[in-house]
Amino acid sequence: MIVKQFHLESLGHASYFIGAEETGEALVLDIRRDVSPYLDEARRLGMNIAYAIETHQHNDYVTGICELANRVSVQCLAGKHANVGYDARSMSDGERLTMGEVVFQILHTPGHTPEHISVLVTDRSRGEEPVLLLSGGALLVGDVARPDLLGGTEEAAKHAETMCKMLQEKILTLPDYVEVYPTHVSGSLCGGNIGSRLSTTIGYERRMNPVLADLDQKDRFVKQCLDLEHLPGVPPYWPRMRKMNTDGPPILGSLPEPPALQPDQFERQQQAGAIIVDCRQAEAFSTHIPGALNVGLGSSFATWAGTVVPADSSVLLVLDKPDDL
Amino acid sequence: MIVKQFHLESLGHASYFIGAEETGEALVLDIRRDVSPYLDEARRLGMNIAYAIETHQHNDYVTGICELANRVSVQCLAGKHANVGYDARSMSDGERLTMGEVVFQILHTPGHTPEHISVLVTDRSRGEEPVLLLSGGALLVGDVARPDLLGGTEEAAKHAETMCKMLQEKILTLPDYVEVYPTHVSGSLCGGNIGSRLSTTIGYERRMNPVLADLDQKDRFVKQCLDLEHLPGVPPYWPRMRKMNTDGPPILGSLPEPPALQPDQFERQQQAGAIIVDCRQAEAFSTHIPGALNVGLGSSFATWAGTVVPADSSVLLVLDKPDDL
Repeated sequence: MIVKQFHLESLGHASYFIGAEETGEALVLDIRRDVSPYLDEARRLGMNIAYAIETHQHNDYVTGICELANRVSVQCLAGKHANVGYDARSMSDGERLTMGEVVFQILHTPGHTPEHISVLVTDRSRGEEPVLLLSGGALLVGDVARPDLLGGTEEAAKHAETMCKMLQEKILTLPDYVEVYPTHVSGSLCGGNIGSRLSTTIGYERRMNPVLADLDQKDRFVKQCLDLEHLPGVPPYWPRMRKMNTDGPPILGSLPEPPALQPDQFERQQQAGAIIVDCRQAEAFSTHIPGALNVGLGSSFATWAGTVVPADSSVLLVLDKPDDL
Repeated sequence: MIVKQFHLESLGHASYFIGAEETGEALVLDIRRDVSPYLDEARRLGMNIAYAIETHQHNDYVTGICELANRVSVQCLAGKHANVGYDARSMSDGERLTMGEVVFQILHTPGHTPEHISVLVTDRSRGEEPVLLLSGGALLVGDVARPDLLGGTEEAAKHAETMCKMLQEKILTLPDYVEVYPTHVSGSLCGGNIGSRLSTTIGYERRMNPVLADLDQKDRFVKQCLDLEHLPGVPPYWPRMRKMNTDGPPILGSLPEPPALQPDQFERQQQAGAIIVDCRQAEAFSTHIPGALNVGLGSSFATWAGTVVPADSSVLLVLDKPDDL
């Protein structure tokens, strides 16, 4: 069994490519929008991406699941409670999918979002016991994913209660030695205290994860989950992301490269209402085009740009050098 | 704690970069000869590589530990039984090294080689229990590293006995949830049945590793370790590698790019005794320069080239296109 993690530092996002050597099939999970790295990996290994699946409808980035389905012949899968707008085979709690010696078992693990699933993976070429859990947001390194993204405080408390029960009944019944590969990793705004490692194990989290220590006292667990002071602010673009991911995002195909503009072209577009995003560092921004917003290039560029730029705006970028594009 | 695995598919080799955010220090383990990826990673993270260590004196590739020490100010470490020719701080069984919240504990784990150590890592920012084992060849994914590389059958049997005891007393006393990051991974000739995943856990191997099933019957374990039919042939260059790694390999600095040769220059060098290695695929080799050896480019190029080309030869490469260099 091939396991490859793709780490996108800018979003604190990890996605996964799991391959079965016996059949040459692969499954991709929690797909980033630029799907070329998965296609490159499949080509390199001589494998076909046969399945694509999301653990939940993300708030924090646009899924590439439809993009992938547009590029290769892939069956999309979705948890039974997901109601997605794109064509996907519905998977119930406990249902299995087999790819050669690799068996994926769907676990309905609500809490972070109501439709959330995790995927428990067994490599039958090694044995009949599970080897790893693709946990999405159900269990993170040193944390769990926040349950407060949908609705107000009352709804968040309900989701936290659901999460408490789910962790006790679904996650912590797994053996200690099972590896845990989450979708939200350090840098994601979906948790307040995510550790910097990119994977963990059930047993290590059972012992060391401070959130799990309160599991047997539901009220304390819920209170901890709702302690929003430990959680980062929610960027305004997130609710749009979730709807877009549920509907099925529009296909990009390949992205055209934005053209370099002459000063008069730049000015015309500015007068037509485009937002100027100056991507230089703060020091350089001290002399800037009037009206420009400053979002310095760095690992959180996408999050900050999404926070300050209104949806559907035309954008003019100011860069230090062409390579920064 | 930052944990990054560097995977070199051509040699079935994994090396590790472990960083402590608290102090900005990093340790690199089982170092590939081209050290630029570690330096790039350190630069990207704003960290200093403070320590470099080898789990054992490798047979299968040249270590980059001296190369690294030549490029940055790094303290080399070595297991107490290693007797290396380069300047290194000797680390005893059980000894600890601290880097911010990260604690490395040296375990003498002989068997694959007599001086072999593993490194048990604790992240005190999470808790006082170990999080992962840098196992070198002491425990692999689905296998253990072969004990037959030094000496004849009798010596190999002795090493296998040592390994049996070491696994029982040092490795399998660790908790199930501890992650295991080996140096020899799929594609390495240091094991006969290494699985394709690039990491595992103590508990998963305890249950699924067929070699460990025989641990309580020493004679069966030794017999299984000496069943050389399941092991790949040992390339003739390996004994040289081990000596070179023990002495401390000569420094490369930066490698010059081999020049493209005109036919008359090529012929002159051939007449002076250079070996022609034709790197094209077998089909293209059907028309080749008389006397050329064919080693097609691919993931095992280095191993095959090292097997057929005599040591210290001058080499003339035949390539399809400049990019193949």
